[in-house]
Amino acid sequence: MMAERAIDYLRTPGALLQLNLPEAALLAAQMHLLAFPAGAVLFREGDNDSPTHMLLLLEGSVSVDTSGSGAVDTVAISVLGAGSIIGEMTLLDGAPRSASCTAIGPVLAAGLSRKGLEALLDEQPRVAAKLMVGLATRMADRLRALGEQIQFYARLAADKQREIERLSGS
Amino acid sequence: MMAERAIDYLRTPGALLQLNLPEAALLAAQMHLLAFPAGAVLFREGDNDSPTHMLLLLEGSVSVDTSGSGAVDTVAISVLGAGSIIGEMTLLDGAPRSASCTAIGPVLAAGLSRKGLEALLDEQPRVAAKLMVGLATRMADRLRALGEQIQFYARLAADKQREIERLSGS
Repeated sequence: MMAERAIDYLRTPGALLQLNLPEAALLAAQMHLLAFPAGAVLFREGDNDSPTHMLLLLEGSVSVDTSGSGAVDTVAISVLGAGSIIGEMTLLDGAPRSASCTAIGPVLAAGLSRKGLEALLDEQPRVAAKLMVGLATRMADRLRALGEQIQFYARLAADKQREIERLSGS
Repeated sequence: MMAERAIDYLRTPGALLQLNLPEAALLAAQMHLLAFPAGAVLFREGDNDSPTHMLLLLEGSVSVDTSGSGAVDTVAISVLGAGSIIGEMTLLDGAPRSASCTAIGPVLAAGLSRKGLEALLDEQPRVAAKLMVGLATRMADRLRALGEQIQFYARLAADKQREIERLSGS
């Protein structure tokens, strides 16, 4: 069941991975099924969990949020549904999770562990390469979006600074 | 010459790619040498150049800057030297360049085109997979750094907003 669902999502047109059916099946064979109840924390910000895995969501939704390094309130980043991949950054670099992911309702996911990725790199390098192209392309998109967000906030801060100078008569 | 220099940088301890000597040579074989005079624009923000390539810097330094979508001044992002890889985002997603790269002095670089990457994926999938793991890991690091920068600017804007409210007595 998991394999079929995972294969479907790995092959959806517009999905991040351009895998054909046998390639998607080879990737799914390295994945394991994980079920989470509503409210479960799939990843916790700052954690360096071991063994590390990334998740392909098969069923249910996940809220992604971060409290940042400061003491400010938790900031919701997004809500992700079936077909989304989460947790790939820590799978790659082993650094602490950059955000928390919480199951909004019951969630089913296919997990790929570091060991699974290494087996794939070793045994099916072509599938591994396509997986990595897909993940890297998605990260490039997010880098572009974050770059625009930074410019927005930098401009906002500069505008407010000018307003402060005007108000304080300096 | 180029192949040897490229291989050296591709294999430097701490370099982004964990390639052994034959693998680095296979990757270098898909690259082509490019020379730029001082002041040359290697990539121009917003361009969707074709054919697209990414560059491994072999000699000289490059300044990376962006003017953003607004009319504000150009913002220098960083200066990169030999061993750095630039331009990989557009190579992957084909979207317009997110920043401009300008040669500070004369620059020598090894370029990998989309066609070269596709040949590598086809003929040397193991090397392509390692290249992609290296690029994706580097992008994960940059996503983490940008995430922290956004939190910094968001806090700065919020602080300034409070100052405005205090000054305007509201």
